[in-house]
Amino acid sequence: MATTYFGQYIIRQSEIFFTSELSFALVNLKPVLPGHVLVCPKRIVPRFKDLTKEEVSDLWISAQKISVVIEDHFKGNSVTFAIQDGKEAGQTVEHVHVHIIPRKVKDFENNDEIYAEIEKDRQPRSYDEMEKEANELRPYFENK
Amino acid sequence: MATTYFGQYIIRQSEIFFTSELSFALVNLKPVLPGHVLVCPKRIVPRFKDLTKEEVSDLWISAQKISVVIEDHFKGNSVTFAIQDGKEAGQTVEHVHVHIIPRKVKDFENNDEIYAEIEKDRQPRSYDEMEKEANELRPYFENK
Repeated sequence: MATTYFGQYIIRQSEIFFTSELSFALVNLKPVLPGHVLVCPKRIVPRFKDLTKEEVSDLWISAQKISVVIEDHFKGNSVTFAIQDGKEAGQTVEHVHVHIIPRKVKDFENNDEIYAEIEKDRQPRSYDEMEKEANELRPYFENK
Repeated sequence: MATTYFGQYIIRQSEIFFTSELSFALVNLKPVLPGHVLVCPKRIVPRFKDLTKEEVSDLWISAQKISVVIEDHFKGNSVTFAIQDGKEAGQTVEHVHVHIIPRKVKDFENNDEIYAEIEKDRQPRSYDEMEKEANELRPYFENK
C-alpha cells in the first residue's frame, strides 16, 4: 500500500477513515473539540488555488458527506468548516486541508473562540486513541 | 430581473459581483478586513448538508475563482475560507455562505483573531462604498 503523506508527515493507515477518488480524511493528532477531523486532496499542494476543478469538487463533496457523519456521531448541532489557505491565514502544514469540527451549544463560551484554538499548541493525544476513533468512523463510509 | 435574497435580506444587484450557474457572490456590509466577501448558493437553504453535489461543486469552484481575484486585488498573501454551518457554529443568516477573506502579514496580531471578528457587531459601511467595491471586482469575472 502506498505511503500516505499529510504535507511532510507520514500518516498511518489506521488514522485514515475515509477515501474517495481524489481525497482522504484523517483523525486529528490535536483536535480542538471531539470529532475535529481533516479532509485533504490526495495530491499534495499547498494552496486551494492549486487544485483542479475535479479536486475541488471531490474535496468538498467528501467534506459534506463527512460532516453529516461527524455531526451525528459526536452529537453536534452545527459544523465549523475552515481552510487556512496560506501562512498568513494560519496554515502550518503545506497541504490543503479542510477542518471539519462538530459544534454544540456552549462548546465554547463564544462560538468563534474555536478558531483561536485551531492554531494553539495543544497536547497531542495517543495513537491508540486516534486509531479507536478512526475505527469508529470508518464503517459509516464503507459500501456507500 | 429577479430579486436576489441573502437569507431574508434583499440584496441590491449593485452588491453582486459574480454569478455562476448555481451560485453568486456579494460584497459585505460589515467586512472583517478589506476584501471580505461572501459566496452563496442561489437556492436558499440553511445548512451545507442541504446542498446537492452540483451545488457544492459550483459553490466551491466559484469560491476558488473568487479567492484568486480577491487575494490579488487586495494584495493579500493568503486566504481564510470558512462556513459557519448552523447556529452553534456562529451562523446568523440562514442561507449557506462561504466567507472568503484575503489575508496579509500582521493583519491581526494573531492570525486567528479574525474568526472572533467575524461575528462581532461591526459598523455597517455605506452602500456607495459597497457598490464601488463590487464595480471594481465585477470586470475580473466578465467574459470568463
